[in-house]
Amino acid sequence: MRALVTGGAGFIGSHLIDRLVARGDDVVVIDNLSSGVVAFIQSHLDAGRVDMVEGDICNPDDVGRAMAKDIDCVFHLAANPDIRLGTRITDTDLNQGTVATYNILESMRLNGVKKIAFASSSVVYGEDAPLPTPEDHGPCMPISLYGASKQAGEGLVSSWVGTFGLQAWIFRFANIIGARGTHGVIYDFIHKLKNDPSRLEVLGNGLQEKSYMEVGDCVDGILHVMANADAPLNLYNLGSHDTASVRRIAELVVEVTQCHDARIEYTGGDRGWAGDIPRARLSIQKMLQTGFDVSMNSEDAIRHTATCLLEEIGLE
Amino acid sequence: MRALVTGGAGFIGSHLIDRLVARGDDVVVIDNLSSGVVAFIQSHLDAGRVDMVEGDICNPDDVGRAMAKDIDCVFHLAANPDIRLGTRITDTDLNQGTVATYNILESMRLNGVKKIAFASSSVVYGEDAPLPTPEDHGPCMPISLYGASKQAGEGLVSSWVGTFGLQAWIFRFANIIGARGTHGVIYDFIHKLKNDPSRLEVLGNGLQEKSYMEVGDCVDGILHVMANADAPLNLYNLGSHDTASVRRIAELVVEVTQCHDARIEYTGGDRGWAGDIPRARLSIQKMLQTGFDVSMNSEDAIRHTATCLLEEIGLE
Repeated sequence: MRALVTGGAGFIGSHLIDRLVARGDDVVVIDNLSSGVVAFIQSHLDAGRVDMVEGDICNPDDVGRAMAKDIDCVFHLAANPDIRLGTRITDTDLNQGTVATYNILESMRLNGVKKIAFASSSVVYGEDAPLPTPEDHGPCMPISLYGASKQAGEGLVSSWVGTFGLQAWIFRFANIIGARGTHGVIYDFIHKLKNDPSRLEVLGNGLQEKSYMEVGDCVDGILHVMANADAPLNLYNLGSHDTASVRRIAELVVEVTQCHDARIEYTGGDRGWAGDIPRARLSIQKMLQTGFDVSMNSEDAIRHTATCLLEEIGLE
Repeated sequence: MRALVTGGAGFIGSHLIDRLVARGDDVVVIDNLSSGVVAFIQSHLDAGRVDMVEGDICNPDDVGRAMAKDIDCVFHLAANPDIRLGTRITDTDLNQGTVATYNILESMRLNGVKKIAFASSSVVYGEDAPLPTPEDHGPCMPISLYGASKQAGEGLVSSWVGTFGLQAWIFRFANIIGARGTHGVIYDFIHKLKNDPSRLEVLGNGLQEKSYMEVGDCVDGILHVMANADAPLNLYNLGSHDTASVRRIAELVVEVTQCHDARIEYTGGDRGWAGDIPRARLSIQKMLQTGFDVSMNSEDAIRHTATCLLEEIGLE
């Protein structure tokens, strides 16, 4: 199979490519390297297993160049990774999320590509959902502009299934963390401690409580579900069994970095920023029913991630 | 109150303006007159009760001109009215639906306008929803590009509520029909009989079964719900109590037009076009609980509409 991975030089994309290459797939990457890093996939590029198209999925011509390479299946992961950005700049998620997803789907239609896996997010559920949240929760009322763009992407994917006969797998991710992370709370905490090991500022009161999934589990889950669910449109939450508080993450990062003298300071309020969801946990019953389970729960994934990112970022 | 009505010269918009003017509101209209008709609101323009901005909501500058007029509440009704178009031209709903809705919301943010009513649609539910479909059905997986754009619009609205403190009312409409209709099945049937009174072609097998709501009931419902639901985000289906088949609509149009010799011919298949939903009926319990009920059910609304449109279109 020849796969096109959007955002393939990024955090989740590069881990997915490790698995695709390992199982013998050919891989084409499109990435604008805004947050992706070529080094993440350099070994596969050197081995000739990955074909890199440096381009922007906001540009239909760039998408067309990648899609013309005899693609069997698209893994559409690229997006603006910074949820908070939407509170200041309102068209980033629209353009890099919604319109870019349209570009992907339209190019698939024009090139006769029939399968797509789409990375959506738990944030589409909004803040009033029951916890753990099942896939059939409704109505989905996202409170962040990032969430709105993921919901819009889901609708575009489902309309291309209904109108043009695509087959699709939509995955609503928990917080995905792990090695090569380029953003997120653990990444931020380590950078803060690198700047000033005497204090660690935490946005909000630290009681935000969310579910974390290790990125290796995430990409294994994607491939397992795709091999075991074959409806025209397949919708799956991907997450772990439990949650961790931001307060606990701060403690774990302090422990792993051995910045034992750091004062943990909270900015206060029950959310980190406007559009942050204080509590999130996905129901993973449907995922488990495919026979897939995670290898790490939230706290193990956090400790593992902090260890990996500490080595990558360093404190000096 | 000063209201901005997008698509105010259109079918539903012009009826809404009749009500707003009658209750004493000031009204600003933005309409590009692609399907809207100035004559629909000419009497209010002549009376100085309505301020018309001829402009396109796809253009942020046009939206800004209208939004700067000291607006208290936006009624965002403008959209591509032709659901079938998405099967041939794939960016119409994206631009005239999703991106245009972004333009409206962003202009509201920039101008400090805090209230919006958004016209969504039953088609966001997709084709696998239980009937009648309640507002909390999930997952919503639209099968038309129009449906995808309405879902995207809902998500944008809810994210502006969650991030920027807007108050919103989202209405998921049944098939809205009535005088001044500019599209839809009854409009199409009358035009077909005008072209050839000896035959009436029906897309699909005629067994498509949907709920119809008269436009006067629709706009009364909007205003009633807004006066009686005051959450930050309010989501309501608007529809009638029952359904009618396309076959029955064809018979009623033949009866009203007195084209009794017309052969009704079916193109076959269980849907009219790719992305058409064969069966749709909204749960209206939540609407009824506000104390509002419709004055017409589907068949009465169809007969009334056929009578009005026959007079407007004529058969000669």
